[in-house]
Amino acid sequence: MGFRLGKLVVFGVGLIGGSFALALKQAGVVSEVVGIGRSRATLDEALRLGLIDRIGACDAVTLRDADLALLATPVGQMPALMQAMAPFLGPHTAITDGGSTKSDVVAAVRRFLPAHCARFVPAHPIAGAENSGAAAAKADLYADRKVVLTPLPENDADAIARVRAAWAACGAVVHEMAPARHDQVFAAVSHLPHLLSFALVHDLARRENREEFFRFAASGFRDFTRIAASHPEMWRDICIANKDALLGELAQYQGQLEELRRALEGGDAAALEAVFDEARTVRRAWAEGKLS
Amino acid sequence: MGFRLGKLVVFGVGLIGGSFALALKQAGVVSEVVGIGRSRATLDEALRLGLIDRIGACDAVTLRDADLALLATPVGQMPALMQAMAPFLGPHTAITDGGSTKSDVVAAVRRFLPAHCARFVPAHPIAGAENSGAAAAKADLYADRKVVLTPLPENDADAIARVRAAWAACGAVVHEMAPARHDQVFAAVSHLPHLLSFALVHDLARRENREEFFRFAASGFRDFTRIAASHPEMWRDICIANKDALLGELAQYQGQLEELRRALEGGDAAALEAVFDEARTVRRAWAEGKLS
Repeated sequence: MGFRLGKLVVFGVGLIGGSFALALKQAGVVSEVVGIGRSRATLDEALRLGLIDRIGACDAVTLRDADLALLATPVGQMPALMQAMAPFLGPHTAITDGGSTKSDVVAAVRRFLPAHCARFVPAHPIAGAENSGAAAAKADLYADRKVVLTPLPENDADAIARVRAAWAACGAVVHEMAPARHDQVFAAVSHLPHLLSFALVHDLARRENREEFFRFAASGFRDFTRIAASHPEMWRDICIANKDALLGELAQYQGQLEELRRALEGGDAAALEAVFDEARTVRRAWAEGKLS
Repeated sequence: MGFRLGKLVVFGVGLIGGSFALALKQAGVVSEVVGIGRSRATLDEALRLGLIDRIGACDAVTLRDADLALLATPVGQMPALMQAMAPFLGPHTAITDGGSTKSDVVAAVRRFLPAHCARFVPAHPIAGAENSGAAAAKADLYADRKVVLTPLPENDADAIARVRAAWAACGAVVHEMAPARHDQVFAAVSHLPHLLSFALVHDLARRENREEFFRFAASGFRDFTRIAASHPEMWRDICIANKDALLGELAQYQGQLEELRRALEGGDAAALEAVFDEARTVRRAWAEGKLS
């Protein structure tokens, strides 16, 4: 419906950035995609795969006339990136990001891009995958997936509209939330499960006779630990970035586990069954789309 | 290779018992399958689905001349079942079970079937599924799955051979372990993950505004919590039956979580990344078959 971008600049052409670029190219709404990144090899691969049209640098030539810039690096790198790009941003460029945490991004924007708060519209695309890198990028990564925008009060309406239209053009269903609420919800439904899954595998990995344990691990273990194959650096950054909310969720979960431990120790079968039964009921309702 | 059963008696014609019966019928190695159970409706359904040939009772007519009996009820019901069947068992019948815990089954056999210790060969088919009931039974449930036998020192060699051949005829790969070692391994790779998954969903289910949490739960959450849709009564029984080993695993996991909590609280990004990195490396090696 008339949505068009001239130049798109993508910082970080891995799974998140590469898929965003590819989706917009395939939707035919972008004239030129310029990629920027730390690794020349990754940029070359992105060019070869057609994710980007050319390789740029964090300078005025690349940034001044961009219609949209996407920050798709690990969240830990974003503050330094914002500092680096600040001098070269023009007044026209809308900016968004693909980070899994939002309060920290908002804080970094206020600190390092104070002149661009009106045009930075933070976003979190909910499209996790244990694979990463340019080779994992695909045009339909965001199709029918949720993307949560956490606009700043300072945001211009047309910057929000442009960012929203870009994510929608990727096929995503766009939601809006306050940054702090976003971080609380995702600490509970995403960051904590990742921590728990990493912890279980690590706990087993440290055993002397670990082969015998892993030999008998079956489909339940496979599913429970799929997210323990996720990117360590990315999840380290997410945990640190969302530390406060995650610590709250973790403490609550530790309390829940201690309740279960006491029930088990006391042989309280009814208490265990009540917890399991409520969990199953709610899990099934969620899977059937009756909770969300 | 000549393995044949005349009469098979199955106690509990749900997923485990029904699939065992169906696999042996389809393999053409059993002449007659008799089902016994608490629920007349389930037995009628099993008969209608062709899992069993007729409905029996826990009496001499049904049991005296059986070649093999499978106990496929929740583990919590097995002691009472053993007491009920003891007077009617003949000297020829081999017995096995499908319980997920083994030390408790061995203890119950010694207590309630002391005259039949030579012919009771405990088994654990590793074929979990979140569905249960006769309708979920399928002939290939055990195909290429592991089944762990935990023979008693008192077992006759021919009882072990018959039980092993029956599980192999279902398509299973048969292993042997000591009961206590079995219970320790499965506490770690199966029972604990179930407890952790139930706990996470229960923790979220109790929140006032739970819809907003579940709305943004994605594929990582889906996989992590798939086992939280498992059968509450069955898992209550498993936890209670394997209480000691599970308490040990749970305590160790709680220690691991507390280490992670302290690392997070202290902002120790390197410690978090080291845990995540080792977990990912081992999880990937396991998925690629390089650990087992």
